Amino acid sequence: MSLNVLFAAHLDRWPDYQKPLEDAFANAGLDVTLARDHAPETVDYIIYAPNGDLRDFTPFTKTKAVLSLWAGVESIVGNPTLTQPLTRMVDTGLERGMGEWVAGHVLRHHLGTDTHVLGQTGEWRPRVPPLAADRPVTILGLGALGQACGLALAHLGFPVTGWARSPKQVDGLKCISGMENLSLALNSAEILVLLLPFTAETENLLNQARIAELPKGVVIINPGRGPLIDDEALLAALDSGHISHATLDVFRVEPLPPDHPFWVHPKVTVTPHIAAETRPKSAAKIIAENIKRSEAGEPLLYLVDRSLGY
Amino acid sequence: MSLNVLFAAHLDRWPDYQKPLEDAFANAGLDVTLARDHAPETVDYIIYAPNGDLRDFTPFTKTKAVLSLWAGVESIVGNPTLTQPLTRMVDTGLERGMGEWVAGHVLRHHLGTDTHVLGQTGEWRPRVPPLAADRPVTILGLGALGQACGLALAHLGFPVTGWARSPKQVDGLKCISGMENLSLALNSAEILVLLLPFTAETENLLNQARIAELPKGVVIINPGRGPLIDDEALLAALDSGHISHATLDVFRVEPLPPDHPFWVHPKVTVTPHIAAETRPKSAAKIIAENIKRSEAGEPLLYLVDRSLGY
Repeated sequence: MSLNVLFAAHLDRWPDYQKPLEDAFANAGLDVTLARDHAPETVDYIIYAPNGDLRDFTPFTKTKAVLSLWAGVESIVGNPTLTQPLTRMVDTGLERGMGEWVAGHVLRHHLGTDTHVLGQTGEWRPRVPPLAADRPVTILGLGALGQACGLALAHLGFPVTGWARSPKQVDGLKCISGMENLSLALNSAEILVLLLPFTAETENLLNQARIAELPKGVVIINPGRGPLIDDEALLAALDSGHISHATLDVFRVEPLPPDHPFWVHPKVTVTPHIAAETRPKSAAKIIAENIKRSEAGEPLLYLVDRSLGY
Repeated sequence: MSLNVLFAAHLDRWPDYQKPLEDAFANAGLDVTLARDHAPETVDYIIYAPNGDLRDFTPFTKTKAVLSLWAGVESIVGNPTLTQPLTRMVDTGLERGMGEWVAGHVLRHHLGTDTHVLGQTGEWRPRVPPLAADRPVTILGLGALGQACGLALAHLGFPVTGWARSPKQVDGLKCISGMENLSLALNSAEILVLLLPFTAETENLLNQARIAELPKGVVIINPGRGPLIDDEALLAALDSGHISHATLDVFRVEPLPPDHPFWVHPKVTVTPHIAAETRPKSAAKIIAENIKRSEAGEPLLYLVDRSLGY
């Protein structure tokens, strides 16, 4: 009997996902009818993304699981109509893409590349940067993405400290855990990368007091979630020179409004939430795998713990 | 008896090198008098760099070896007054620094970072780049530097083809050799990195005909040597759009003259020969090791084959 799978991400994602999903279902031996418009009471599985319209899960009486295409599930985890199991995306393509984006921007700041890209003035200024071995980087968050980025940076030679709320061990990274040890992770960072999930506990984690614990001249890179940073405190620290630059891929409101001060601040680089795009081909495999597991009565991969929020 | 070692690099390098060299000699158990002004006939070893004044090696009748601080020795290898053994620098710091610079600029072009750094216009343009796995990179030259860069890029996920004039094998890279196979290395490259030594055979290697063998839209990155590229052919291919960008760290004349067209070309990024700076601390150890070997009658490390030119 065919399974009804509802594609509930935004319409503009459908052309990218339809074929990879159909291929992945076929490869997994699943008989699936994939559509954007199944009647709610007939839907077996929902493929979800926050850019779609779906907000009320009540009519989906038969649905066995909601499978998010996004790694971050803060837009749905608190939805009171959601009673079905929820999984988040852990996509190798997303991890690789994030690793590349973070490595690229850490190296950009490490090498001082903007000086040259923005300053082709004819003046020969041969200042050589230190080696990566002398440039400590801290990553806040040691989930799948934080670990992938930490390992990519460590392989490039950077001494990487990783901080997580609960204890983690990752070979090649110096791991620190617990709110009581956050200062230790902050005060050695010449470059700070934010890869925490957005929860009540992490909102405004990087506030005025914590920024003060960072060394003067630190660079902030945020490909995690916009609300991890207190924007006013960030702007003040950029203006005072305590933070030398911020490269931000995520924001409280997206798209970032054209009149937002981040766009014109000389020490801020805005990128349009491109660091951690789920990749259709690898993500489709994860979706198919989870439907196969569910149908076989096996535990779902990447099941969200709704009390933790991720 | 104390050995007289002449520091013949440019005066402005002396403050960076004096202490690291003295420390390295002491650690190697060598009794050395290091100076910038020994009488030529009393000099046991010369530490050389092309930015210094030394051109005539004839008066150095007692000198046992000339030890270059630079990896590239094209400025000295053809000097007819040089009869002493010549070594080039293979510095782990230089290799690491080159790997960081190349990885940083390959990722910059791969990610399209300049679009954002130069275009903070308030417009939200979420175009996601492909994964590194779908971005083939070719490196011309598989010496110590080419290999280090190739491995760093392969670890980041790029499929890397390395080409060398004579057969090489490097795990993790697809290795191609010989002039007759150069086309194979060129026609798959979305990003091309030049890390060949400068010799009569490599001068203008990237000429109009070879540029035509590269796919349209290729990016050129040259941290090797300026004369590897035919500058006129490069400018023509940038103007026609066949080459989409060139990031150049080395030039036929350095510093690059302020009125050179590269400075103002919108598709060229000039960096001031900073990719492969020898690092005093690690380089000093190599110099000390070679003097120790020479005094013990052992073969020198990194001896230049003057018929090959490197």
